[in-house]
Amino acid sequence: MGTRVFGEPVRRREDGRFLTGRGRFLDDLGRGALAAAFVRSPHAHARITDIDVSGALDVEGLVAIYTWEDLPGRVGDPLPLLIPHPALTHGRTGYPLARDVVRHVGEPVAMVVAHDRYLAEDAAERVHVEYEPLPPVVGIEAAARAEHLVHDDVPGNVGAVLVQETGDAAAAIDAAPHALEFRLSIERSASTPLEGRGVYARWDADDGSLRVYSSTQTSTSVRAAIAARLGLPNGKVEVVAPDVGGGFGVKIVHPWPEEVLVPWAARLLDRELKWTEDRREHFVSAAHERGQVQDVRVGFDDAGRVLGLDVRIRHDHGAYTPYGIIIPIVTSTQLLGPYKIGAYRAEVTSLYTNTLIVTPYRGAGRPQGVYCMERTMDRIARHLGRDRADVRAANLIQPDEFPYDQGLLFQDGRPLIYDSGDYPELLRKARELIGWDGFAAERAAASRGRRLGIGLGLYVEGTGVGPYEGGHVEIDTAGRVHVSTGLTSQGQGHETAFAQIAAAELGVPLEDVHVTTGDTRRFGYAVGTFASRAAVMSGNAIALACRKVREKALRIAADALEADPRDLDVTDGVVHVRGDMSASVPLRTVAVLSNPLRYAFDEEAAAATQFAVGRPATEPPVASGEEPGLEGRGYYSPVRSTFASGAHAAIVEVDPDTAEIAILRYAVVHDCGRLINPMVVEGQIHGGVAQGVGGALYERMAYDESGQLLNASFMDFLMPYATEVPRIETGHLETPSPLNPLGIKGAGEAGVIPVSAVIASAVEDAEGVRVDAMPISPDDLHTLRLRAADDPSLRVREGARTG
Amino acid sequence: MGTRVFGEPVRRREDGRFLTGRGRFLDDLGRGALAAAFVRSPHAHARITDIDVSGALDVEGLVAIYTWEDLPGRVGDPLPLLIPHPALTHGRTGYPLARDVVRHVGEPVAMVVAHDRYLAEDAAERVHVEYEPLPPVVGIEAAARAEHLVHDDVPGNVGAVLVQETGDAAAAIDAAPHALEFRLSIERSASTPLEGRGVYARWDADDGSLRVYSSTQTSTSVRAAIAARLGLPNGKVEVVAPDVGGGFGVKIVHPWPEEVLVPWAARLLDRELKWTEDRREHFVSAAHERGQVQDVRVGFDDAGRVLGLDVRIRHDHGAYTPYGIIIPIVTSTQLLGPYKIGAYRAEVTSLYTNTLIVTPYRGAGRPQGVYCMERTMDRIARHLGRDRADVRAANLIQPDEFPYDQGLLFQDGRPLIYDSGDYPELLRKARELIGWDGFAAERAAASRGRRLGIGLGLYVEGTGVGPYEGGHVEIDTAGRVHVSTGLTSQGQGHETAFAQIAAAELGVPLEDVHVTTGDTRRFGYAVGTFASRAAVMSGNAIALACRKVREKALRIAADALEADPRDLDVTDGVVHVRGDMSASVPLRTVAVLSNPLRYAFDEEAAAATQFAVGRPATEPPVASGEEPGLEGRGYYSPVRSTFASGAHAAIVEVDPDTAEIAILRYAVVHDCGRLINPMVVEGQIHGGVAQGVGGALYERMAYDESGQLLNASFMDFLMPYATEVPRIETGHLETPSPLNPLGIKGAGEAGVIPVSAVIASAVEDAEGVRVDAMPISPDDLHTLRLRAADDPSLRVREGARTG
Repeated sequence: MGTRVFGEPVRRREDGRFLTGRGRFLDDLGRGALAAAFVRSPHAHARITDIDVSGALDVEGLVAIYTWEDLPGRVGDPLPLLIPHPALTHGRTGYPLARDVVRHVGEPVAMVVAHDRYLAEDAAERVHVEYEPLPPVVGIEAAARAEHLVHDDVPGNVGAVLVQETGDAAAAIDAAPHALEFRLSIERSASTPLEGRGVYARWDADDGSLRVYSSTQTSTSVRAAIAARLGLPNGKVEVVAPDVGGGFGVKIVHPWPEEVLVPWAARLLDRELKWTEDRREHFVSAAHERGQVQDVRVGFDDAGRVLGLDVRIRHDHGAYTPYGIIIPIVTSTQLLGPYKIGAYRAEVTSLYTNTLIVTPYRGAGRPQGVYCMERTMDRIARHLGRDRADVRAANLIQPDEFPYDQGLLFQDGRPLIYDSGDYPELLRKARELIGWDGFAAERAAASRGRRLGIGLGLYVEGTGVGPYEGGHVEIDTAGRVHVSTGLTSQGQGHETAFAQIAAAELGVPLEDVHVTTGDTRRFGYAVGTFASRAAVMSGNAIALACRKVREKALRIAADALEADPRDLDVTDGVVHVRGDMSASVPLRTVAVLSNPLRYAFDEEAAAATQFAVGRPATEPPVASGEEPGLEGRGYYSPVRSTFASGAHAAIVEVDPDTAEIAILRYAVVHDCGRLINPMVVEGQIHGGVAQGVGGALYERMAYDESGQLLNASFMDFLMPYATEVPRIETGHLETPSPLNPLGIKGAGEAGVIPVSAVIASAVEDAEGVRVDAMPISPDDLHTLRLRAADDPSLRVREGARTG
Repeated sequence: MGTRVFGEPVRRREDGRFLTGRGRFLDDLGRGALAAAFVRSPHAHARITDIDVSGALDVEGLVAIYTWEDLPGRVGDPLPLLIPHPALTHGRTGYPLARDVVRHVGEPVAMVVAHDRYLAEDAAERVHVEYEPLPPVVGIEAAARAEHLVHDDVPGNVGAVLVQETGDAAAAIDAAPHALEFRLSIERSASTPLEGRGVYARWDADDGSLRVYSSTQTSTSVRAAIAARLGLPNGKVEVVAPDVGGGFGVKIVHPWPEEVLVPWAARLLDRELKWTEDRREHFVSAAHERGQVQDVRVGFDDAGRVLGLDVRIRHDHGAYTPYGIIIPIVTSTQLLGPYKIGAYRAEVTSLYTNTLIVTPYRGAGRPQGVYCMERTMDRIARHLGRDRADVRAANLIQPDEFPYDQGLLFQDGRPLIYDSGDYPELLRKARELIGWDGFAAERAAASRGRRLGIGLGLYVEGTGVGPYEGGHVEIDTAGRVHVSTGLTSQGQGHETAFAQIAAAELGVPLEDVHVTTGDTRRFGYAVGTFASRAAVMSGNAIALACRKVREKALRIAADALEADPRDLDVTDGVVHVRGDMSASVPLRTVAVLSNPLRYAFDEEAAAATQFAVGRPATEPPVASGEEPGLEGRGYYSPVRSTFASGAHAAIVEVDPDTAEIAILRYAVVHDCGRLINPMVVEGQIHGGVAQGVGGALYERMAYDESGQLLNASFMDFLMPYATEVPRIETGHLETPSPLNPLGIKGAGEAGVIPVSAVIASAVEDAEGVRVDAMPISPDDLHTLRLRAADDPSLRVREGARTG
């Protein structure tokens, strides 16, 4: 790599656009399009007995109303079960529009198309749907009781039972010097991106093709789904993810009903059609995550080393399983974190409830797993009266043990083998950064009556899951470098990070690089943006593509300069003899030379070439059979995932009267391998911690017994403001991944993963009461105080509280 | 190749669409678009002193009027000189809209945009342009006299002087036993496709991209030109050639002014904009060809063997040279045809005139060269009193002399080496087909007073000129085979011929193959459709792409079937163990298996796969690093052109009173290497002969002295009807080209090439008067009769007339 741009804290190139209101989000497009609105179920569980649209027909500007009966062929088929798994014996998915039964509040029942959204909503209100209510199943306990069924044909409401096992955990626990048994729980939350979902479709009758803009995390898979359901070849469906205001997982599900229905109706009506989700719709008809109850049994020795761990997880996956059981798979495989556990067994029961579907949200099952493991470490430490950090240290995988095989299968079905890391150093740096060892003194020195607590947590995150991503790089005859990859962006800074990779690999100025993501017209094969995989997968694919382009450029330039390609280098977009800038040819000219049809390709550049290179434009310089154009395509397909890791620590203060919890300090030590851009990584960490703080202290989905979501608005669903998010102190560690050319690991989700565990640990430390359920509100904490006053088993042993 | 479909006379798949009015031609698109009309010069040569648009401004529905002054930056730059050549010392091109001087009637002066074409024409009529007339230069003689100049800075009106030479022709002629000297001329004609030019542009402000439909022969080069002139990256310009109603060369020129102006205005106005050329516009503002005067000196021996040939060609290239001097280059290099000539010299003087530009029209200079050579053969035969066919036979290159080097450089700058052929056999078959040897008796037996004549002509045509074309082939998960290539179609039957190639190479049913041409969204690199190159270039590229896909399919299928790929074959779209259809997997399933992201790619297919192949959908079957998808790209870049050949012969009857010429019989023996589809090749021959008959007997551009084209309509410009086109008897010869994998040669232009030579030969034979100028109308022939009555030198020696 020539130019030093890889690894630099380059400012995000997309921010100018975003901060000045020039982003092009879904709802900025298609201003003249027709609008869709949806009639959605007000019931958690009911049978539809009649739909009467007559009351809506006189709404002026109404164009069409569709119910399931109107959907032809595959358009009305059940949504796909995207990730089947042998353990998911009873996978169920819904219909694009409800057929006979609705199973959660917000399930779409009819689609209304009108000249604008106001009119569409007016008409939607006048569609009269008659429901016969059925008994709703709300919450894990109710689902497990199975007095009522969400799906008639799913006994016990059990969709899946999944077991992960290494060694004989039960025997190990029974034989261990110490054993503990306890229950943990974590509530539902959701991605709640700034921008909800949205779809805008244009049918081009001239061309027989469909252009669909979707606020999605996977444009290629949306394309495949639309093509399959509308009976079009892939090549006649273009899906573009424009600027997307956050995804965090909820936009990886595909196809959303609206992603099928809006394009279908746009083609049928031969009119542009758009639907933009509103906030209430997002709360009740997108997706949630997190909700689990975990029953833990752990056996350990005097040093706190875990000899056996048995976890029974009950997972609430809502009304349907379009995304399979990936979340409990991740929870149960990633739970072990940076630790060597003697024997391990996890049994996950995945349960249907009459609530919104559960699909990945940033962290995707990891926060729950880390919460379980780290709470367990704290319990062990409390039980033994040992320092919580020391107990963790006693269990850590050591740097010389990599690659480390956990003996399980990862979510991608491949062996769970950690590639690299230095967990003791992570822990050491986190202790140092937060001032772990001095905290007891600090607390002692604090004013009397102040309740301070410290907590910490470690995690390992499998990032960069396959199967592949690709990158395409083209240098045009104006010297612009066009980089494209199939996966999508939701604000992560891909335009910056991928440009840095390309600029460094090619030796061109950063400002010459233009990055396109999520546009099937530019790159047609992709998986999508999730699982912290963009940098690893597309970053490496782009690097590989750049290397091909660079090699071709040097070959063509060598021919033009009558030099040996091995003597050439590229500096600031100019190929030159190493150490001799006078014998040079700019890449823009090499681009002209790369197309045998030079004379017609770009007149100006052709003229420049003849001048620069001194031979007629009609003589083909490219070897016979070589492809024209200065471009290259690269695919990266990993043998297995890379494993990023980190340690978080926090100091909290709890108000003795109001039980308000304030985070005084928050420290993150983070290892995602080689850093492409430390500023972007820190931004990811900051955002992740902010979402983690929300999950730990504020965010929950307040369903009542009838399955109504009581807080389905930002008035009621609490997210942390900037005032609630602490300043985050960050330390980096770089253990390059040996698995990919750039040595990088993913960083997108890391920030959020251990936050609930860390805050729980710190609050427990501050209060001296066991914190088993998250999030924890002042009200929750107050209740806990009252209960602990009556029940000593809920109190943490005083001597073991800190350090 | 499995299925026997290559070489079969499969019916054209596009004809159903064309014959039932379901073609999508340019004017079928963009029904709601704004319309453009052009103010064009009524003068052949004038200075523009003022443009006053005020009279047009009150036309209702007027949107905009643009003159050259309004064109920013590169939009207003002179049009490119597409094919520079060292001999073209004074190349000149016009502006998209005339700047100061107009140099031919029809040159665009202003563009008017309005709500429809009627309104645009109304407004255009009211734009008042003040001209100061300049003396026009019309015709080759006037140009050569150079009393006036077309371009002030081009002395003598000479754009280029080009010399082709092998040996010392002058010395050879001087030393030869016999020598002749004479002048030949051929008039201007034009492509006159059924559909004129047309451009329809849509600017997508959301996307910052431009979609341009153009009735063009080269969508990629149009894209490059638009991108360069509008300052857009290539990736933001999509150019699609929809169904195109004939091109014949006139649509290979690029960019036409309208191809820059319409997209530019569409973007500026942010409105869809369309322009469809009308017939008069086509006559005066598209392009013509053919016009040449040839002064021949030839020396030969008693057997008629040509020892030296010296040709001075004066070529009329009209007002500008956007396409360079490719036509006289072709004339002077292809003139030698199938003959071995002792020494050869051609000197071409390319002259400017105040008439429409001259660019290639089907045959592209070859009809003139063949006319010259074949008329010369006839002259030699007459002079020696020998049989015309025998004289030709004496000069032919023999089958054992291939590859045969003519010692010149071809139009692509590479050595003029014929790859294969059997010219004596061609001649033998043509004599047989027309009944050459029995014709004297036939004539003698005819009723007294009937004037019958027989003529023949041979030609060699360099086809499949480079530098390259590419093909892309993709098998989708429904088993459809999508074939695309960058070059365009104008009705040649590419959808059929390319599908035959793909079906044969892949082993799939023909009906599963879908061919797309000329759409930059599907294939971004191409040269274009001209020079009879489509079958050779794209055909071979598609075959190469298919071979890659087939190989990949066998590899994946072998893995699925646990077989050796070498044991597999493909029949009717199913990969199977050779001789065992039960161990099989359909290609549609192989397509699913080829994408590691199987589960999301196509649900139905994924399910089918699991069933068919019996393993879970999430296990990636594709080798790491292999590209996903069952697709492949191939490029074919020839070392040099292939050389097709043929012999035509005709019997004509001339009315003694009215001088009307009737073609009684027409025979073609044609060799374009291996035949992909004999029916398509015969269709090409028939169409070519029809155009040749037009050129020989009817079509001419009747310019008056002031440069007005007097017959600029189909009322006045005579084209042959079906009644004038004879039934064509065809014989095929197949000498495969050793240069390309399919062994094919081009066939698109062949039919037209020798027709003027053959008809001239036959009329001369019937009348006994020298026919030196073509086309020949009854009036021309009548004049010739009168002149020959007074001038014996214009008469053909009686005894030498036939046989």
